[in-house]
Amino acid sequence: MNSKLQELQELKVLKARLREVIDLNSALSILHWDQSTYMPDGGAQARGRTTATIGRIAQEKQVDPEIGRLLDVLEPVAEDLPYDDDDASLIRVARRDFEKAIKVPPDFTAEFYNHRAVSFSTWAKARPENDFKAVESMLEKTLDFSRRYADFFPGYDHPADPLIDRADYSMKAETIRALFADLREQLVPLVDAISQQPIADDSCLAQHYPKKLQLKFGEWVARQLGYDFKRGRQDLTHHPFMTGFSIDDVRITTRVNEHYLNDALFGTMHESGHAMYGQGVDDKFEASPLMYGTSSGVHESQSRLWENLVGRGMPFWRRFYPQLQAMFPGQLGDVPIETFYRAINKVERSLIRVEADEVTYNLHVMIRFDLELALLEGNLSIHDLPDAWHARYESDLGLRAPDNRDGVMQDVHWYDGMIGGSFQGYTLGNIMSALFFDAAKKAHPEIMGEIEVGEFGTLLTWLTENIYRHGRKYTADDLVRRITGSPLKIEPYIAYLQTKFGELYQL
Amino acid sequence: MNSKLQELQELKVLKARLREVIDLNSALSILHWDQSTYMPDGGAQARGRTTATIGRIAQEKQVDPEIGRLLDVLEPVAEDLPYDDDDASLIRVARRDFEKAIKVPPDFTAEFYNHRAVSFSTWAKARPENDFKAVESMLEKTLDFSRRYADFFPGYDHPADPLIDRADYSMKAETIRALFADLREQLVPLVDAISQQPIADDSCLAQHYPKKLQLKFGEWVARQLGYDFKRGRQDLTHHPFMTGFSIDDVRITTRVNEHYLNDALFGTMHESGHAMYGQGVDDKFEASPLMYGTSSGVHESQSRLWENLVGRGMPFWRRFYPQLQAMFPGQLGDVPIETFYRAINKVERSLIRVEADEVTYNLHVMIRFDLELALLEGNLSIHDLPDAWHARYESDLGLRAPDNRDGVMQDVHWYDGMIGGSFQGYTLGNIMSALFFDAAKKAHPEIMGEIEVGEFGTLLTWLTENIYRHGRKYTADDLVRRITGSPLKIEPYIAYLQTKFGELYQL
Repeated sequence: MNSKLQELQELKVLKARLREVIDLNSALSILHWDQSTYMPDGGAQARGRTTATIGRIAQEKQVDPEIGRLLDVLEPVAEDLPYDDDDASLIRVARRDFEKAIKVPPDFTAEFYNHRAVSFSTWAKARPENDFKAVESMLEKTLDFSRRYADFFPGYDHPADPLIDRADYSMKAETIRALFADLREQLVPLVDAISQQPIADDSCLAQHYPKKLQLKFGEWVARQLGYDFKRGRQDLTHHPFMTGFSIDDVRITTRVNEHYLNDALFGTMHESGHAMYGQGVDDKFEASPLMYGTSSGVHESQSRLWENLVGRGMPFWRRFYPQLQAMFPGQLGDVPIETFYRAINKVERSLIRVEADEVTYNLHVMIRFDLELALLEGNLSIHDLPDAWHARYESDLGLRAPDNRDGVMQDVHWYDGMIGGSFQGYTLGNIMSALFFDAAKKAHPEIMGEIEVGEFGTLLTWLTENIYRHGRKYTADDLVRRITGSPLKIEPYIAYLQTKFGELYQL
Repeated sequence: MNSKLQELQELKVLKARLREVIDLNSALSILHWDQSTYMPDGGAQARGRTTATIGRIAQEKQVDPEIGRLLDVLEPVAEDLPYDDDDASLIRVARRDFEKAIKVPPDFTAEFYNHRAVSFSTWAKARPENDFKAVESMLEKTLDFSRRYADFFPGYDHPADPLIDRADYSMKAETIRALFADLREQLVPLVDAISQQPIADDSCLAQHYPKKLQLKFGEWVARQLGYDFKRGRQDLTHHPFMTGFSIDDVRITTRVNEHYLNDALFGTMHESGHAMYGQGVDDKFEASPLMYGTSSGVHESQSRLWENLVGRGMPFWRRFYPQLQAMFPGQLGDVPIETFYRAINKVERSLIRVEADEVTYNLHVMIRFDLELALLEGNLSIHDLPDAWHARYESDLGLRAPDNRDGVMQDVHWYDGMIGGSFQGYTLGNIMSALFFDAAKKAHPEIMGEIEVGEFGTLLTWLTENIYRHGRKYTADDLVRRITGSPLKIEPYIAYLQTKFGELYQL
């Protein structure tokens, strides 16, 4: 039957049409990478205009009725094929994209791209200056765009649903709210128990670590993990991210704090995890809608797996700590590995999400998630957002940021995208990272031993085989069920945290 | 009458249509900048595909019959306006672009962009390895593309004419051949006379100059000249170039030879000259076809003016040599300014165009120009090109490159564009640079005195007023006539060379 589909001229035409959309989206990603890394200040306005034009054309191409017609012809043929047939999967995913895209007018897309470029540049300048006023009206517009976007999908249960669906297909505010409530119930007692214990000493990390050497070590580690620098690179930016323009051009960015070792080191491992996912997609999906990661949650499961389950583990550092000491002999030469290990896993209620430990991290995400819902519901105004931020940090983490720079302006997301759906992926990813890592270790019990000697091939191959190579062929839910045999559950993740931090804090 | 044109809805629609084309071309330029600076090797294939798609869409938008219809409506109204009216100029230039564009099928453009991206990447890898074989078949395709391009413009006198016209509007092979012959007649005796004199000692330049300091000094000088880094930046590349995506985002690139000071220093001044032209266009032309430099020749007149007439002059170094010495005390602390001045102006028959002195430089250009004509005429094959290159260098400059790296593979142009029209602009620019500089000094006799104290404002303002701000409103010929009152002539340029090098070599 497959050959019948493959023989249809319509399939070739559809693929060519979709390739055009992918190319336009790749160009947009390159423009965005440039804006986030090297673009001079003066370029912001033109960049807004240029991305708006390309974004509108991409959208116009994507909603061309001809794509709908081609899908109408191809779907009945594809329906006879197994779910995991490549072409059937392509058609399924293309239909899903098409149905979503046609609801959004190209003018809206252009307008939003224009707004986004200017908003991002404004934030990048305003954040160091702690100038919330400068971004306030931008954020109001962003909220308005986000609501208008949601309203293109009438019938939602919650206005956040269409926005969540963009990042994490088929997830809804209500499901996530319930999931997060369960998780919080387990996390809060763990955080409380740990905070009764003596606080870990991370002074060894809070020394002067020259930028150049930090970057060198981070890139070397990324290379060891399996990130291919012939098909990627790392640059500096305001807020680290991964972006891909092709399976063979997947880039990461980082920022360096010369007075704290963690940020760049674990940031690089985090982004490398994303990048290995991007580089691991099967070549046959290049330039098709299947070439990307399948969801925000699955993407984060990979960044968090490499950053935390691998990169913050004792086995990993048994192999790499001597190298780190050799790079920074003055700072770490006399620090025992146990001290270092406790330092990089110090649990502490803190202000910055991307620097938070594994246990408190999800509390940061939940704050943002709830604020997004409140904003979209109309129960919170942008004007009141900074105070609402502070109030939630006080109630959830017992801390108040001294300013908005480390408060509501700390994350790029709301300044570089929509409000809604921006954060739940991190926690979904944490939950999935434990599921996937457990499955990999179950299939290959030698993995932990290999990590101890700096070998990651078995793990990377398993992840590639079971997750990366499929691109968007399977949904997050598909992957979880295929790998674990059941739907998403939080217990393995909780068990991982309880075991690791129970040992560390002798609970 | 102007208001009548401005009131026409068609003018607004035309401008919006043209803006879309500009945006697509800006995206292409950004993709190309990225490919030339930071793109990892793996990205080449996808980059070819992406630029092909964007290039084809840009071309499709540019040849949309609606643009022709809008021009048909607007032209009769514009004809009543003065030649230098902004909107009339826009319509005139848009018509010229449109008539050219409609002759070239979008599929050809897409195919060529695809080829060009792969060809460039192949060259960038093959050149250091001196591997002409790796690029030979690419070049054959490029020649074929170039001929096909020419044939879209039947009726030409020479197949190079349509290609020359792309870069230097209204110029033809025959005119340039005659101009170059006149120039050669004056240059060869000058080179001969100089070569009878003792050769200048440039050993002070051939020392170890650390890359970082070279870049720092070069950027500082560029800033002094007037290149605005808030609307630009400098990065490293294989073959230096300037590119602009907006009047407010005009970038330069350079490469550094740690064992010879000239390359990066004068390269940066050269590209800064291009960039100041790009940044100096009147804001009102942003995102219109008038926003660019008017021709390759006028662009080169500015790069060469700042690099040579300013940057290789004694007045300039009276101000900046102490700073250079302070940056490189070990290398230059004991070198008198006269020795340095003679070194940077050393005339010598050499192998590399971009490193050639002012006197022999044009001989390099003429070799390439003649080879392009021969290739297009069918009188020379790509296979025989490396030998033809060597033969011309032997006959014209008395030298033979030891390999193809410094022979036929030295310049990026044929690997990153078409064959034909790529080089004449450099010599046209040299000729014009003297005309324009003379006119500026005539209008403001204080200019040379200002340069001696590191002030460039009067010169930059005059150039902006008379050249930069107009963008493409005036043709090269218009500008020369407006500024000098007569058509292009070589005498002032020859006089400049004879005076400067006559003094230096006591002829």
